[in-house]
Amino acid sequence: MGVNAPLNRKLRMGLVGGGPGSFIGRVHSIGACLDNRAEVVAGALSSNPERAKQGAADYNIDPDRAYGSYEEMFEAESKLPDDTRIDFVSVTTPNHTHFDIAKEAVEAGFNVICDKPMTFDLAQAEALQAAVEASDVVFAVSHNYTGYPLIRQARAMIQNGDLGEIQAIRVQYIQGWLRDKIEAEDQKQAAWRTDPTKSGAAGAFGDIATHAYNLGRYMTGLLPDQISCHLKTFVPGRALDDYGTAVIRYENGCLGTVTASQISHGRENDVLIEIDGTKGSLQWRQENPNEMYVRANGQPHKIYTRDPNAPYMTPAGAAACRLPAGHPEGFFEAFANIYGSAFDAMIERAEGKSFEKRDTIYPNVYDGVEGMFFIQQCVASSQQDAAWLSLKHAAARR
Amino acid sequence: MGVNAPLNRKLRMGLVGGGPGSFIGRVHSIGACLDNRAEVVAGALSSNPERAKQGAADYNIDPDRAYGSYEEMFEAESKLPDDTRIDFVSVTTPNHTHFDIAKEAVEAGFNVICDKPMTFDLAQAEALQAAVEASDVVFAVSHNYTGYPLIRQARAMIQNGDLGEIQAIRVQYIQGWLRDKIEAEDQKQAAWRTDPTKSGAAGAFGDIATHAYNLGRYMTGLLPDQISCHLKTFVPGRALDDYGTAVIRYENGCLGTVTASQISHGRENDVLIEIDGTKGSLQWRQENPNEMYVRANGQPHKIYTRDPNAPYMTPAGAAACRLPAGHPEGFFEAFANIYGSAFDAMIERAEGKSFEKRDTIYPNVYDGVEGMFFIQQCVASSQQDAAWLSLKHAAARR
Amino acid sequence: MGVNAPLNRKLRMGLVGGGPGSFIGRVHSIGACLDNRAEVVAGALSSNPERAKQGAADYNIDPDRAYGSYEEMFEAESKLPDDTRIDFVSVTTPNHTHFDIAKEAVEAGFNVICDKPMTFDLAQAEALQAAVEASDVVFAVSHNYTGYPLIRQARAMIQNGDLGEIQAIRVQYIQGWLRDKIEAEDQKQAAWRTDPTKSGAAGAFGDIATHAYNLGRYMTGLLPDQISCHLKTFVPGRALDDYGTAVIRYENGCLGTVTASQISHGRENDVLIEIDGTKGSLQWRQENPNEMYVRANGQPHKIYTRDPNAPYMTPAGAAACRLPAGHPEGFFEAFANIYGSAFDAMIERAEGKSFEKRDTIYPNVYDGVEGMFFIQQCVASSQQDAAWLSLKHAAARR
Amino acid sequence: MGVNAPLNRKLRMGLVGGGPGSFIGRVHSIGACLDNRAEVVAGALSSNPERAKQGAADYNIDPDRAYGSYEEMFEAESKLPDDTRIDFVSVTTPNHTHFDIAKEAVEAGFNVICDKPMTFDLAQAEALQAAVEASDVVFAVSHNYTGYPLIRQARAMIQNGDLGEIQAIRVQYIQGWLRDKIEAEDQKQAAWRTDPTKSGAAGAFGDIATHAYNLGRYMTGLLPDQISCHLKTFVPGRALDDYGTAVIRYENGCLGTVTASQISHGRENDVLIEIDGTKGSLQWRQENPNEMYVRANGQPHKIYTRDPNAPYMTPAGAAACRLPAGHPEGFFEAFANIYGSAFDAMIERAEGKSFEKRDTIYPNVYDGVEGMFFIQQCVASSQQDAAWLSLKHAAARR
Repeated sequence: MGVNAPLNRKLRMGLVGGGPGSFIGRVHSIGACLDNRAEVVAGALSSNPERAKQGAADYNIDPDRAYGSYEEMFEAESKLPDDTRIDFVSVTTPNHTHFDIAKEAVEAGFNVICDKPMTFDLAQAEALQAAVEASDVVFAVSHNYTGYPLIRQARAMIQNGDLGEIQAIRVQYIQGWLRDKIEAEDQKQAAWRTDPTKSGAAGAFGDIATHAYNLGRYMTGLLPDQISCHLKTFVPGRALDDYGTAVIRYENGCLGTVTASQISHGRENDVLIEIDGTKGSLQWRQENPNEMYVRANGQPHKIYTRDPNAPYMTPAGAAACRLPAGHPEGFFEAFANIYGSAFDAMIERAEGKSFEKRDTIYPNVYDGVEGMFFIQQCVASSQQDAAWLSLKHAAARR
Repeated sequence: MGVNAPLNRKLRMGLVGGGPGSFIGRVHSIGACLDNRAEVVAGALSSNPERAKQGAADYNIDPDRAYGSYEEMFEAESKLPDDTRIDFVSVTTPNHTHFDIAKEAVEAGFNVICDKPMTFDLAQAEALQAAVEASDVVFAVSHNYTGYPLIRQARAMIQNGDLGEIQAIRVQYIQGWLRDKIEAEDQKQAAWRTDPTKSGAAGAFGDIATHAYNLGRYMTGLLPDQISCHLKTFVPGRALDDYGTAVIRYENGCLGTVTASQISHGRENDVLIEIDGTKGSLQWRQENPNEMYVRANGQPHKIYTRDPNAPYMTPAGAAACRLPAGHPEGFFEAFANIYGSAFDAMIERAEGKSFEKRDTIYPNVYDGVEGMFFIQQCVASSQQDAAWLSLKHAAARR
Repeated sequence: MGVNAPLNRKLRMGLVGGGPGSFIGRVHSIGACLDNRAEVVAGALSSNPERAKQGAADYNIDPDRAYGSYEEMFEAESKLPDDTRIDFVSVTTPNHTHFDIAKEAVEAGFNVICDKPMTFDLAQAEALQAAVEASDVVFAVSHNYTGYPLIRQARAMIQNGDLGEIQAIRVQYIQGWLRDKIEAEDQKQAAWRTDPTKSGAAGAFGDIATHAYNLGRYMTGLLPDQISCHLKTFVPGRALDDYGTAVIRYENGCLGTVTASQISHGRENDVLIEIDGTKGSLQWRQENPNEMYVRANGQPHKIYTRDPNAPYMTPAGAAACRLPAGHPEGFFEAFANIYGSAFDAMIERAEGKSFEKRDTIYPNVYDGVEGMFFIQQCVASSQQDAAWLSLKHAAARR
Repeated sequence: MGVNAPLNRKLRMGLVGGGPGSFIGRVHSIGACLDNRAEVVAGALSSNPERAKQGAADYNIDPDRAYGSYEEMFEAESKLPDDTRIDFVSVTTPNHTHFDIAKEAVEAGFNVICDKPMTFDLAQAEALQAAVEASDVVFAVSHNYTGYPLIRQARAMIQNGDLGEIQAIRVQYIQGWLRDKIEAEDQKQAAWRTDPTKSGAAGAFGDIATHAYNLGRYMTGLLPDQISCHLKTFVPGRALDDYGTAVIRYENGCLGTVTASQISHGRENDVLIEIDGTKGSLQWRQENPNEMYVRANGQPHKIYTRDPNAPYMTPAGAAACRLPAGHPEGFFEAFANIYGSAFDAMIERAEGKSFEKRDTIYPNVYDGVEGMFFIQQCVASSQQDAAWLSLKHAAARR
């Protein structure tokens, strides 16, 4: 069967961001291309023309399609013939620029994969949602942890009722890399992420607690009701939170907790999620993503491994695997799974078929909106001494 | 050197509670006697005379000293000669009875090891504190997790400044045994622990979150300022909380979180504590208590094992070990360490020496008071929609 | 029910060895007394009278029963009345002295718990077997790892056929404490264990590989056929092996491997056993003894925890637990389980009942003989360039 | 900087094998292309023309370059202009076909990445070595586990002397997928791997023990002296070994053990290597490849994580990382590292520079020869009752 059948060709990627010194742009390109279903053919990797050229060479992008700005890219690519023009745009720039880029891409008719948090603030997110709804593009947000096979497995198991009614969700996302004020030392990643003019209203809560919250929402589908949040800035002189904790009341009575840290010495990228249901519980840790603990009283603890051939795997879980059990998959593959699912929708679109926009297996614009709402309410709650604020947003999907 | 030198004899234990079907009474007796420093010589194991006799045989207690009530025991033992009379009383009954027993024991001049939570409510705890202060007895509370060698090691390291200023404490205490309403099935342990007339104002928070909170306090010495707590009762018909989460503001700005569950399927007795300081972080899990992770940015993760011979061990940590590294110690040994430290004080008392009553290595009456205050404020906060309430109590020690 | 019913009294222990500086003597006494079923009442803790006295005080032994030699103890105790005389002798001295002590104790009619390896050489072991067979005493050998609840659980599961036919046994026992030549620095434990006149023909293989081999034998009951062994002495100037590996052919075709090290930096007491059967496999690690992995193709990995209340536990496994799941038990408890099982037999003997001598749940004299045969054949094989030698011995039990 | 600078273009890959139903062909193509440094442009994916076409579409190979045989591919590609012709050939077919394909590719001047074991027997391997030596091609063998960052890190540490003199190497490679006779059920992977006419003289030892042995050799550089091996076939009717163990004497006195299983229920792909040196020891497990334990007596156990930014990382270790610590990398990345290192050499060759052929960071033809010698001697030793045979081969590199 051909690549991306019935298209039988690779999808063409236009990358925004990802120039020298970038982290997440390279991750997007590797994730997008891992399965040989896409190719980076164009890029606006930097607004500095020299850096843009340099970056383009890194990606083997033809110099003709190494654009000096995303506007230029969209305009030029739009004029290219159907069999050459980029199919989708990956937005991998700092947060404050997402909105303009993504909205323009959507309006130009390009499919979009947008990094998270989706925009700078909620208003932008809602405007972007409207733009997507007014278009017929595929729009995904890279809440990449949802792409791990065992996360999709867990989601399917919960949807199947294997855990019963969900009553508690505990998520921790613990890092240590901002323990010192490295933004003052010209560390590029640290600099923009701790700068409220680029990162948005929140620091740790915008960068990582959004992932943590999204993960629980994605896996359980529970709708939130209220949130109480307490943010801290432990590193002197830092402008945004680098630690915080939130309590979430879900509509069904479930109690959620989210704690995020960027100041925990030696901790790397430790996302730990635990979910308790009336029939079973589960536990998964991102740093060892190929196994998940599933437990029920009176039974041995069970470790579900990422095993595409195991009878216990759901179709969604098995489809997200590339390798047999025991052959570790990781972060890139999770990204690739987000891309792959979005590609499936892009093919449907390219074929002129209708495709699901709301209840997608990949995080979409609605999740992006909800993420921005989460950030907004966390910051507001924290400013009001952890007051309970509504976490209900019309965009939230089950 | 003789046992309990210079006393050169075993200490004599009078056990209250611990009759057939009891859990913690047996744990106390094994912990107390593990090092051959004490012997159970008397008991008021049950208020039912027949069960009291039966229980006494289990412990090899002389029938003459198998009392029908604690009052009887204190009265009779008080009349025995110095070289026969019990040295200390272990209170291992349900919570609502602790106060009367402990207070009477103190007033009769017996040293006391009291199970936690120390009393039924705060008023009792404060009254007991007064009684202890008015006496010259040794009084310990069995917050047994503080007896683990690596917990004492961690405390010493924090006191030494190895972690720098402490900024975050995360504790989870996750169990699953009350997932079903087993108190309705005549399970003795479940029955009293879920009964507000016996357990006190809180369920999970009284039974296990107190341990979790105490552990953070013990290890860091940080003084608390305010608490916001959210309790849940997930099992229909249960009278007390079986799940909850609290956020704690410490005086120095440290942010603490405590989450406790008794309804997480398949989870056993999973106490996980993580402490973040400006110079390092640590992580310890009760279910695998012989190792502790210590981390600092840029360095390999370090596992400190319970190794009495390792140069990295502090005197307090090393002194709490009985076996070389790699020879697992566990729950009984932690109990035994609480007892052992209390025994050291009892010997000093018996020798007529002054002994430390407040800044002890074992949890004492002040910790017991603070635990009751914690429970009271958690319940009150939860009833007020997780309002911030004061967590400052005059009894709190560093 | 009374202690040791129907005896309704504690058993009386006479300890040989265990004086100041000893390791294993103290372990025996704690293990023996943990459940309040026994008491150390007499001892020949050292052949040096002063040290014997000093040691006796440590154990709270009455000075009258602090003997200067084991001969003296056996003679004096034999003359004591039935209700005072020691019930059993624990032999915790260096290996070369075990035989004389144990044989004399047996012949004097005392039950015996003998440390491993049972004797200095095979001839002694066979002579001791004959002595035990000629007597009516209970005789146990402290292959203590067999006392762990999950080891007894595994044994019962294998006996029940849960793993099918056993085809492979892999055991590693890795330590690092003899990495340097600490025997030259007057480290008492190292000194005798590396001295062929005290330890016997083998070093690491006598001290720890015997445990490893015994564990596989105990758990599977498979009879051995042949062995090929390769011993190494890595530390210059050391007289005995400090590393080695052996391959074992079992009668049923099962292939076994045993590797032991005392020179692996930083390794503590890492016994790892893996058993493969036609229906399932298992894996257990001594340093985390409260869990065991059980696996079968196509199923989630299962962790059996030490849970006395779990339906999956066999009676033998459950009976070896003292605490609920999640409350770690360790090394002392494993020792205590060997003692406890031997006590059960001692009670039967004391009641005049017949009791099982060969197919016991505790390691017995036959296991001791087999251990010495294992050592002898390992050394011989190694000396013959790892030649295959017979590992069949008439004493071997299933 | 351009891709593969100064070439500034992707390298062109010709894939042999990898058609529908293949496992390792897809792994090679993903590994090769992960970093956007290569592209699959031609293939001889199957000798069946229809399947070859079908497979080519899977890889987006132009139908013109979807060849019906490798001979056809080499002939046709050789005639293509320099800027179109494939740069390298990946040989991913069953073992018995490697030699003809690889030799012809080498002789046609194509660089080669050959799957392991390199050939069907030693004679072929030696002939291939001669062919490679007579050519100027880059030749790599996909002993992929050597591509893990922490394996390269460990190798550099050992070369730096961090562990001192190496005295023991223990490797286990445990799988369970051939527990049942699935080759009888037309499972394609199982069928050829258990067929001596396709797999070669050994089963488990050819398929996986070679990896295990190679890993120890790669990490330590120690030269082997002798081997004693014992192979077993546990599944009735199977033609090749599915279990075995070998003891290896290294020239410096180090003792090695290699155990491999394909019949251990539920075990996935569990490669565990432990190395003991006079100054430190290390331990690494493939199923959790992002961490490695490094230990020394008296120090905390250290976990080196795959952290490109950590001061403790060697240049070789850091260069093999793509992501920050805590962002798991896995099996594909290890493959990609083998490819990437071979690409570096291919660029040097393309630039007309001399390049290292023997002391390469990637496994090369000499390792391939040694692997075949290992298999031959294992089988021979096993047939002679585990006799000690020489393991010295002239091709062995440090």
